[in-house]
Amino acid sequence: MRAICTLCGKIAYQNPKMVVGCVIEHDNKVLLCKRNIEPSYGLWTLPAGYMEIGESAAEGAIRETWEESGADVEVLSPFAQLDIPLIGQTYIMFLAKMRKPHFSPGPESSDCRLFALDDIPFDSLSFSSILVTLKLYIEDVKVGRPRFHYGTINKIPGSSPSDIHAYTLDHHLQS
Amino acid sequence: MRAICTLCGKIAYQNPKMVVGCVIEHDNKVLLCKRNIEPSYGLWTLPAGYMEIGESAAEGAIRETWEESGADVEVLSPFAQLDIPLIGQTYIMFLAKMRKPHFSPGPESSDCRLFALDDIPFDSLSFSSILVTLKLYIEDVKVGRPRFHYGTINKIPGSSPSDIHAYTLDHHLQS
Repeated sequence: MRAICTLCGKIAYQNPKMVVGCVIEHDNKVLLCKRNIEPSYGLWTLPAGYMEIGESAAEGAIRETWEESGADVEVLSPFAQLDIPLIGQTYIMFLAKMRKPHFSPGPESSDCRLFALDDIPFDSLSFSSILVTLKLYIEDVKVGRPRFHYGTINKIPGSSPSDIHAYTLDHHLQS
Repeated sequence: MRAICTLCGKIAYQNPKMVVGCVIEHDNKVLLCKRNIEPSYGLWTLPAGYMEIGESAAEGAIRETWEESGADVEVLSPFAQLDIPLIGQTYIMFLAKMRKPHFSPGPESSDCRLFALDDIPFDSLSFSSILVTLKLYIEDVKVGRPRFHYGTINKIPGSSPSDIHAYTLDHHLQS
C-alpha cells in the first residue's frame, strides 16, 4: 500500500499505528481520564496513546498512563486488540493495577476519576475503541473470567466520526 | 520519538510496524515456508508480513499466508503478540486452519511443508520471533490448552542479528 508523504510529497509506505493503553482496576472500579485536548475534548477515555519506537507495547501503555493520569501502574495481562482499518489504527489494551493508589491529571487531562462499572459515563466516552474495551471488560467481569479479545471495529458508513456508537465489532475472537 | 524522513530529510514521526502471520494447524502439523528472499534466505518461517493500511490484522495475516504459501486459511484465535523494541516491530500471530488442504509456495517462498511438532527445523528457522512463537505453541499443545501470549523479545547485546537463539523473552504474560 502506497501513500504520498505529507512532508515531501513523494511516495512513502505507510503502516497502521498502534495505540497502547490500560484498563486500570482498583476496588472494582476503573480509572478514566477526561480529555483536555482535541479530538473528543471534554470526553472520558482510558489512558492510551501512540506506541513509540524503542519501547514495548506494555512499556508504552505504562508511559501513556503515567503521562495522562499520573498513575504508576503494573501491567497484569493483555486484554484486547481492536483494529480500526478505516483510520489505520490498532488499539492494544492491557489490564493493569496501580502500584500505589494515587493519580492526578497530566497536561492532556482535565480530570481523572475511578468509576464503578455501573457509573461509567457511556454517553460521554471519547472513542468507539474505548466504548468497546469497556463493554468487553464489563462482560468479562460479570462472567468472572478475564479473556483476551481480538476484533475489528468498523464504523457504520455515513455515520459521524463523533458518533462513537455507530460501529460494528466484527471478527470478534477470544482466547 | 522523532526521526529523519528517508525521502525528504525532514523530521517525521516513526511508529513501530506490525508484522501479522499465522500458525496453521493441520493433522497435528504446522505449515512452514522456506524463504526465497533475504533476509534469512533459505530458512524456514511461519507465513507473516507487514500489516497494511485499510486491513485488519486478521485480514493481513490471511493475505500474507495466501501470498507466501498459497493456503486459503481461516483465523481461529489470536495466539501471540511479540514486541521487538530493538527493531521497532511487533509480531501479531493467529492460530489458523486451511479451508482446503492445499498449499504451494508463492514467489517469496521456495518450498512449503507441513511439519510434525517433533520435526520442526529449530536450527534452520528465520527469526527469533518465529522461534518464540513455535516454542510457545508447542508448550500450549503439550498442556492441551491454547492461550494468548504477550511478550517482549530482547536480543542479547553484542549478538549477531542472524543468531536467532540469542534473545530473552521478557514480560511474558498469558491470558
